[in-house]
Amino acid sequence: MAKELKNFTKRSDNYSQWYNELVVKADLAEQSAVRGCMVIKPYGYAIWEKMQQTLDRMFKETGVQNAYFPLLIPKSFLCREAEHVEGFAKECAVVTHYRLKNDPDGNGVIVDPAARLEEELIVRPTSETIIWGTYKNWITSYRDLPLLVNQWANVMRWEMRTRMFLRTSEFLWQEGHCAHATAEESEARTIQMINLYGDFAEKYMAMPVIKGTKSANERFAGALNTYTIEAMMQDGKALQSGTSHNLGQNFAKAFDVTFMNKDNKPEYVWANSWGVSTRLMGALIMTHSDDNGLVLPPKLAPIQVVIVPIYKNEEGLKAISEKVMPIVEELKALGISVKYDDADNKRPGFKFADYEVKGVPIRLAIGQRDLEEGTVELMRRDTLEKETLPIEGIAGVVKSLLDEIQENLFNKALKMRQERTIEVDAYDEFKKKIEEGYFILAHWDGTTETEEKIKEDTKATIRCIPFEGDLTPGTDMVTGKPSARRVLFAKAY
Amino acid sequence: MAKELKNFTKRSDNYSQWYNELVVKADLAEQSAVRGCMVIKPYGYAIWEKMQQTLDRMFKETGVQNAYFPLLIPKSFLCREAEHVEGFAKECAVVTHYRLKNDPDGNGVIVDPAARLEEELIVRPTSETIIWGTYKNWITSYRDLPLLVNQWANVMRWEMRTRMFLRTSEFLWQEGHCAHATAEESEARTIQMINLYGDFAEKYMAMPVIKGTKSANERFAGALNTYTIEAMMQDGKALQSGTSHNLGQNFAKAFDVTFMNKDNKPEYVWANSWGVSTRLMGALIMTHSDDNGLVLPPKLAPIQVVIVPIYKNEEGLKAISEKVMPIVEELKALGISVKYDDADNKRPGFKFADYEVKGVPIRLAIGQRDLEEGTVELMRRDTLEKETLPIEGIAGVVKSLLDEIQENLFNKALKMRQERTIEVDAYDEFKKKIEEGYFILAHWDGTTETEEKIKEDTKATIRCIPFEGDLTPGTDMVTGKPSARRVLFAKAY
Repeated sequence: MAKELKNFTKRSDNYSQWYNELVVKADLAEQSAVRGCMVIKPYGYAIWEKMQQTLDRMFKETGVQNAYFPLLIPKSFLCREAEHVEGFAKECAVVTHYRLKNDPDGNGVIVDPAARLEEELIVRPTSETIIWGTYKNWITSYRDLPLLVNQWANVMRWEMRTRMFLRTSEFLWQEGHCAHATAEESEARTIQMINLYGDFAEKYMAMPVIKGTKSANERFAGALNTYTIEAMMQDGKALQSGTSHNLGQNFAKAFDVTFMNKDNKPEYVWANSWGVSTRLMGALIMTHSDDNGLVLPPKLAPIQVVIVPIYKNEEGLKAISEKVMPIVEELKALGISVKYDDADNKRPGFKFADYEVKGVPIRLAIGQRDLEEGTVELMRRDTLEKETLPIEGIAGVVKSLLDEIQENLFNKALKMRQERTIEVDAYDEFKKKIEEGYFILAHWDGTTETEEKIKEDTKATIRCIPFEGDLTPGTDMVTGKPSARRVLFAKAY
Repeated sequence: MAKELKNFTKRSDNYSQWYNELVVKADLAEQSAVRGCMVIKPYGYAIWEKMQQTLDRMFKETGVQNAYFPLLIPKSFLCREAEHVEGFAKECAVVTHYRLKNDPDGNGVIVDPAARLEEELIVRPTSETIIWGTYKNWITSYRDLPLLVNQWANVMRWEMRTRMFLRTSEFLWQEGHCAHATAEESEARTIQMINLYGDFAEKYMAMPVIKGTKSANERFAGALNTYTIEAMMQDGKALQSGTSHNLGQNFAKAFDVTFMNKDNKPEYVWANSWGVSTRLMGALIMTHSDDNGLVLPPKLAPIQVVIVPIYKNEEGLKAISEKVMPIVEELKALGISVKYDDADNKRPGFKFADYEVKGVPIRLAIGQRDLEEGTVELMRRDTLEKETLPIEGIAGVVKSLLDEIQENLFNKALKMRQERTIEVDAYDEFKKKIEEGYFILAHWDGTTETEEKIKEDTKATIRCIPFEGDLTPGTDMVTGKPSARRVLFAKAY
């Protein structure tokens, strides 16, 4: 069993298969009986809960409150904003009936044709429409603004090709929907939230990101501007990890949401929306994990330290437990999440393999000889290095090592991205390097036509126009037309 | 506006209308554009979050882990357990298509007839079927048991008559689904969870409950036994506030979930499920609130203390703020949630009314004269009593008063229930007292026929066979047949 757990496809052999196996073997998620929908298993969900709690706290610190809006959206709502319906109405789950009845032929139940809805309802693919339909009643004066609301919810987009966490028909996310009195304030909030996502990604997920603006082609349907955080996965592909959209007055106009401004004149409200989803789980996995399984940054690990006793008989276990329990208490007092795994129906070797696959940052093992010598064996998951250390003061060692692992994971990921990010000026070179899995900074003439040609030729897309970086003008590598600056190209998930 | 906020229908005039108005005026929720679905507004959601956090902690302390299962359930899954499908398949939202397309007539979008699902999907009304369909893959040996899993989710039941929080087509809830190796263990967990709900209701919601067993007629579809907590609302009606179901081996048999027991023999797994929902919000409102609006028990109040400054000019506000800020810090240090409302676009009178309607347990008001005299005015929401107190030491006073309010609310609710719970032996008396809004302990012959006759005659149902209480046998008040013991009757929400 221990062997089976560790018997992974290697990343270098088949990255995609490695990912799929890891998700299942680390007990994160599995395919459900419903096409394209996954079951998030307890261990995977515990990681997602840590993300949620952190993000929720960060949102609230900026004044955001949570609320909840209906799952089902009337079809007519989707149609109100012209671009939005184009982007979202096409692949969605449609509720047409509200009752089943016994099959007259005796074969279970069938849809009751008499219970057809007058207007079909759509399982929300995103909630701008229902929320702006609601805001109409909430906003009358500038005094009601800003309205800073978030919801944690499930959404559905009927995807043809799905992969667990990365692209599933149903996924969990948060969607923030803010309403402001001025364009400036709304833009500032849009930027604030993409920066917040960037901080979360870098400080908690230990995942370096490039922040920037999406090209018109990759914008959210109905937005004036979409900002994104883009991360590099270990295969060199980009993963869009969070977006924040400046919606201008589009949804206020579509749903007729006006307010009386300070000069007592009616004005349309300014909007933004922003979200991250369980896709972040995929990003987390693909940023740090290795051929032995999951690697978790300590700040998001449900179990930060596991302690495994190695004993021959009950008496031996008892002696070890007596030594270990005060350490467990000490670790807890330091705010560290610790598990003492003294289960006697699994061998230490199995436990070692299991916690390795599950990415527990630090493993302590303690046996009879350690007891005698006052030592403990420590393994850190990020480097797989083992050390024998004095048991005295081990809690303090663990605490600072967790910080070190967190930092090491970030630095490692950053180093990889830096090594695999290059400037390219010739299209042939571009094609070659994209195939090899690079982030490429290249000149672009600013047109959707060129962008689409590049996508067709190479599958690479413009991930973003980075907020930071070289602003020197140049020449588009495909058309030779003038380019204002380099933008970021990559193949993406 | 202050007047308008307080201009409620009185409970004694129209209890139902009072409730509906309160939900809206206290900013808890509102009807959405989707029939039977509500929007939970930020203030209402903040109360629900407090409930969630507390329950989630209590669950986890008993070893429960969270997970997430799909929103949509294949129609065939619902049909697997015969009783279950009878109970749940009838009023549910049915997804039949997965795509919309542009209307050839140019009228927005229509359902694409080509995108019909082979098998219809049901928006989950509860998740036993999809979860037991999943557990089949998770359980092989007694070593995999018990499996203690909970999910926080939205569910849908297509209700014809809806009321916010009490009965909505979509609602939020948690559903726990445990799998055990023995019938005894599963029964013990079923009881453990109804006791946990009882503790939560009484200690956090300050809502006394009667715990007991449901009659066969009121059982969960597919359960051997359903346990319930029943609370009395201020109109004397009962509100079922949480249930825990012993499912025996019904779902294991329906989904063929077996395990190898310690004797290495295959056996069907034993199941239970348990849940509470946003209905608890309705219970909370109707237990404590009064003709002035919401009354919240301190332990679930998003704002426990509000401080309102009363000032004439900016200088006056500054002087007050200087005095108040250290108190705010002191209160926070005591773990008390405090809001200092120095917003200058609302008058103190409006703020007073608003926080009263919103049920903030304690209000402190401080004006120029208070500053001079070193005093503060304190109002407690439960009794509406005002007192002028020394500002020195006010944080300590607030802390113990919050405990006192919590206790007072519970005692008040308990007293009302005790006064309105009676034993009745004659059916005529029963009919009269039920109409007046009493909980009635009466003898019952144990048959569904009698239960249904009583329901038809009086609208009263058996709320439960209480765990505690008089076990003396007697005679059924309707049929004259022997009765094992008194059971609890009431009209119910």
